[in-house]
Amino acid sequence: MTVPAQCREFTEIAERVNNWGRWGADDEIGTLNLVTDAVVREAASTVRTGRRIPLALPLQQDGVQTGLVPGRVNPLHTMVALNVEMFGPGTVATSDDAVTMGLQAATHWDGLAHVSYGGRIYNGRPATTVTAHGGAAFSGIEKSRPLVARGVLLDVARARGEEQLARGHAVTPEDLEAAEEFAGTRVRAGDIVLVRTGQLRRYLSGDRNGYAHPSPGLSLRTPAWFHARDVAAVANDTLTFEIVPPEIEGLWLPVHALHLVEMGMLQGQNWNLEELSEACAEEGRHAFLLAAQPEPFTGGTGAPVAPVAVL
Amino acid sequence: MTVPAQCREFTEIAERVNNWGRWGADDEIGTLNLVTDAVVREAASTVRTGRRIPLALPLQQDGVQTGLVPGRVNPLHTMVALNVEMFGPGTVATSDDAVTMGLQAATHWDGLAHVSYGGRIYNGRPATTVTAHGGAAFSGIEKSRPLVARGVLLDVARARGEEQLARGHAVTPEDLEAAEEFAGTRVRAGDIVLVRTGQLRRYLSGDRNGYAHPSPGLSLRTPAWFHARDVAAVANDTLTFEIVPPEIEGLWLPVHALHLVEMGMLQGQNWNLEELSEACAEEGRHAFLLAAQPEPFTGGTGAPVAPVAVL
Amino acid sequence: MTVPAQCREFTEIAERVNNWGRWGADDEIGTLNLVTDAVVREAASTVRTGRRIPLALPLQQDGVQTGLVPGRVNPLHTMVALNVEMFGPGTVATSDDAVTMGLQAATHWDGLAHVSYGGRIYNGRPATTVTAHGGAAFSGIEKSRPLVARGVLLDVARARGEEQLARGHAVTPEDLEAAEEFAGTRVRAGDIVLVRTGQLRRYLSGDRNGYAHPSPGLSLRTPAWFHARDVAAVANDTLTFEIVPPEIEGLWLPVHALHLVEMGMLQGQNWNLEELSEACAEEGRHAFLLAAQPEPFTGGTGAPVAPVAVL
Amino acid sequence: MTVPAQCREFTEIAERVNNWGRWGADDEIGTLNLVTDAVVREAASTVRTGRRIPLALPLQQDGVQTGLVPGRVNPLHTMVALNVEMFGPGTVATSDDAVTMGLQAATHWDGLAHVSYGGRIYNGRPATTVTAHGGAAFSGIEKSRPLVARGVLLDVARARGEEQLARGHAVTPEDLEAAEEFAGTRVRAGDIVLVRTGQLRRYLSGDRNGYAHPSPGLSLRTPAWFHARDVAAVANDTLTFEIVPPEIEGLWLPVHALHLVEMGMLQGQNWNLEELSEACAEEGRHAFLLAAQPEPFTGGTGAPVAPVAVL
Repeated sequence: MTVPAQCREFTEIAERVNNWGRWGADDEIGTLNLVTDAVVREAASTVRTGRRIPLALPLQQDGVQTGLVPGRVNPLHTMVALNVEMFGPGTVATSDDAVTMGLQAATHWDGLAHVSYGGRIYNGRPATTVTAHGGAAFSGIEKSRPLVARGVLLDVARARGEEQLARGHAVTPEDLEAAEEFAGTRVRAGDIVLVRTGQLRRYLSGDRNGYAHPSPGLSLRTPAWFHARDVAAVANDTLTFEIVPPEIEGLWLPVHALHLVEMGMLQGQNWNLEELSEACAEEGRHAFLLAAQPEPFTGGTGAPVAPVAVL
Repeated sequence: MTVPAQCREFTEIAERVNNWGRWGADDEIGTLNLVTDAVVREAASTVRTGRRIPLALPLQQDGVQTGLVPGRVNPLHTMVALNVEMFGPGTVATSDDAVTMGLQAATHWDGLAHVSYGGRIYNGRPATTVTAHGGAAFSGIEKSRPLVARGVLLDVARARGEEQLARGHAVTPEDLEAAEEFAGTRVRAGDIVLVRTGQLRRYLSGDRNGYAHPSPGLSLRTPAWFHARDVAAVANDTLTFEIVPPEIEGLWLPVHALHLVEMGMLQGQNWNLEELSEACAEEGRHAFLLAAQPEPFTGGTGAPVAPVAVL
Repeated sequence: MTVPAQCREFTEIAERVNNWGRWGADDEIGTLNLVTDAVVREAASTVRTGRRIPLALPLQQDGVQTGLVPGRVNPLHTMVALNVEMFGPGTVATSDDAVTMGLQAATHWDGLAHVSYGGRIYNGRPATTVTAHGGAAFSGIEKSRPLVARGVLLDVARARGEEQLARGHAVTPEDLEAAEEFAGTRVRAGDIVLVRTGQLRRYLSGDRNGYAHPSPGLSLRTPAWFHARDVAAVANDTLTFEIVPPEIEGLWLPVHALHLVEMGMLQGQNWNLEELSEACAEEGRHAFLLAAQPEPFTGGTGAPVAPVAVL
Repeated sequence: MTVPAQCREFTEIAERVNNWGRWGADDEIGTLNLVTDAVVREAASTVRTGRRIPLALPLQQDGVQTGLVPGRVNPLHTMVALNVEMFGPGTVATSDDAVTMGLQAATHWDGLAHVSYGGRIYNGRPATTVTAHGGAAFSGIEKSRPLVARGVLLDVARARGEEQLARGHAVTPEDLEAAEEFAGTRVRAGDIVLVRTGQLRRYLSGDRNGYAHPSPGLSLRTPAWFHARDVAAVANDTLTFEIVPPEIEGLWLPVHALHLVEMGMLQGQNWNLEELSEACAEEGRHAFLLAAQPEPFTGGTGAPVAPVAVL
């Protein structure tokens, strides 16, 4: 990655958070290794009320994509059968649908092969192992299952008393720690952290372009914090995950590079954390069981996910 | 549905299991109403080891569809970007994918609007409320969330000491009760029941056509059993869910009609229960927390799901 | 069609131009019957210079659709193989592509089943013969071949000395006749008429929304003119073909209803007539051989076409 | 391309037929340069009866693909609107369709970027200029228009008095010359040659697998013949264009390499030449005007085409 001269910071962070080889040279799932059975038992024990909150946006043509990313198309839902009495007149009738969509178009996980830099993906494999003929040979999204863990909502917006963060707001480690304190739960190894900025409210209120950018997002300094805490995965409620336009001019998507390539950590975008924010505030707790298994597309560099938080 | 003369049985069952109006005239989710917070708390409490078992088949072009059902195509995974340095030479590079697939092509839930008969879908709504322009206006699969509950594996094949059921085997209520006894867990209101026939072993061993049919499946007599137990949803490891060719000549998909239309109960197909069968046998228990949220396609008459059992 | 009270005009025209039964009760191609072998021989004889002008817009994601018509998506071009040495290292390498697109999204023909009113399509068949399971059982676009005929450019914009017609301009029979005079060629039975408004210049200059609407288009009074001349098909260089917003408030797409349903006449949209306009002006003639075979999608209610004019 | 030792023949032919630089270093269309205005005038003059013969197979899910080539899927035709009264009850109703398909799945042209070897495509450009993000930057199929020329049917099967060639039959230059003599027309510079083997009869009679292979096809020795005649393009009625399994063990698709890479010549597959064969035999002539414009997919390495022969 071409790094502006002043950005030695990026290189230093990259070295610090690098997980290549940590789980062996053959590893393809990175920080998902941190989701141990003990973590999952602990996650199950957080369930108190049994209340379930869905975190996925509905999949529809009027989705969050605006055409900015070529080829990343909103779901096109079509019908191939409508009440067809396929076994003859008067028999049971069936309807069938088909869909075309970008795997990264809606509420999704970025897989580890979604990004490369310096010709490498996670664990030092060549970027050329991602091909049009099969997608990601290594670290495809189908390797990432099963994904159930403890989830922790870091409600940065609410902790700051804001409906939504200002559009250029860079979420810092200090923001995360303030939200952690607000949450009353310390983030632990193997957790999935959900960072709420409130930015999705723009989309929900009808402003699709305003949702896209400018956008608050995770600062370049946050990956080291996630690394120090040994977080398993991070998702938020923005289109790009990071600050747009970027904090450091010309340094695009540094957090992608650090999370996906250096750390081998899944990251999620376009998660709807609004209802969860309300629920956590009502119940006065911000940890829960989180079921967030991506659809296992073989070779996928990402995949839609329909996460559910169980409080 | 044109019912052969001898099949007064179907009509009698249909009347017995009908749930129209049970949760109000406006209800669109049927037996999912049975998944109460208490059920979910109970589900969470079943978690002991924290072991997670994925139940979805990988989504790939070499999937379970053989072309028998027009338009129900296996996933076509394509690339729209491969390590593109979209912000200029030397910057971070991204890869993006797109997919086209039938919503009922792989491991999926049939939504309530997937089937109609006599011109009606669940809760008595006209079948014509499913259109090409938006899909299911009522009971679309996006209404069905969030779907986390207690899962119970009824391992009919293993309970009978068979690797897989004979191809014409009609799974009866007696089979279910034998499997329940084998499981050591009584099926309760709000449970999601997974019925294992072992038929999927044919697909896994490479015999795609043999998997399709002839196939064992759930007998016409089982819906009444599920209804009596107030089950929330049922899934199995076959392509059609039901016996193919049908038990009663000319009476195609009677269980679909009973589950989806009369009861308003989701049913799942192509679930991979092999690893779960091993795990449950090893752990000596067959109840677990099941996370099985369908992808919320607006208006979908079904949707892919990536279920995870947590033991 | 709900016709405003003052619009007895529509009904009168509908009766006048109706072609149901004209070519028999079984006919599915309407005015294409007028393209006789003699017409084609005549078309071939118009070729003088051998100059060929393509009339299709390139098929790409940055196409003319803006999202106004749900489901009518611009072409999504994806790769499924990139220089894959599928027979082993060092062997010949192949690249393959796939596409998803609306059949009416780009330069296309509307098929006769694209529109219905009063529950009928062309030749009085029920609109319900168009289904999700196979598309148009009658008058599908695959029936419309082969489509080679004499083409005549009626360059309404140029004839009026305008770069492009004003946005609300209703092209009248008088406009057509002025353009015919400008062309120096009388429109004859079996001709394909290309009406140029210049509106496509807006899209070509980058104003996609401005191209969509408001738009000039063919007036309600033109179908009778085409009918009187026994034209085989008509295409133009607008998104909607007709004036948007409509000439008579509340009367949407009356020309579609007249052309497709009453007359059984294909109509084309988003044809790029700019280069042709220049060429015809240069050569001082406006009749040519036109090859405009739609892609024969079975059951299609329309189809992309890559027309070529040969001067 | 790894060439078996005995296959110095391939290398010799490659050198002989190479057209790199022939039309300049910037050229992207190769032998289409040979279709001059004079050729087209000549083509138009061949029209005598005005009879039109369509040469495309219908585009439908039950197409010629069998799953052998990953990602090359038969057309999936879906509906996104069915008689929708989009402007209110009683207004005109529209139906819209969408499609997903492989660009090389049906009757198509292979574009020049469809094949590479030794890391090169036509005119010596790097194979890496074909990417997932835009397809072919050079020699994309959208560059190939407009494609109207003289067509000549070389009906090898009929000239040999056979319904269809034997499955391993390698069509040789001698076969082509015998067919040329049978045709009574000498192939000239700028012609599009259609070579009929009769193999498509297998598909038309329902034997899709038998159509795929084993298959007759064009021998390694034919490109030099086409080159000597300065043919503009060649199409035939087989799935692979070449002999399958290959003439020389281990030498797969040598004709693709010669035509597309060395010569820069489009080649067509899955063309239905049955009706044309009958018509030419009836009329006693085998030259005609051929309109065969590919759909101009930007960056496409191939494209569907709906060719029409005008006799």
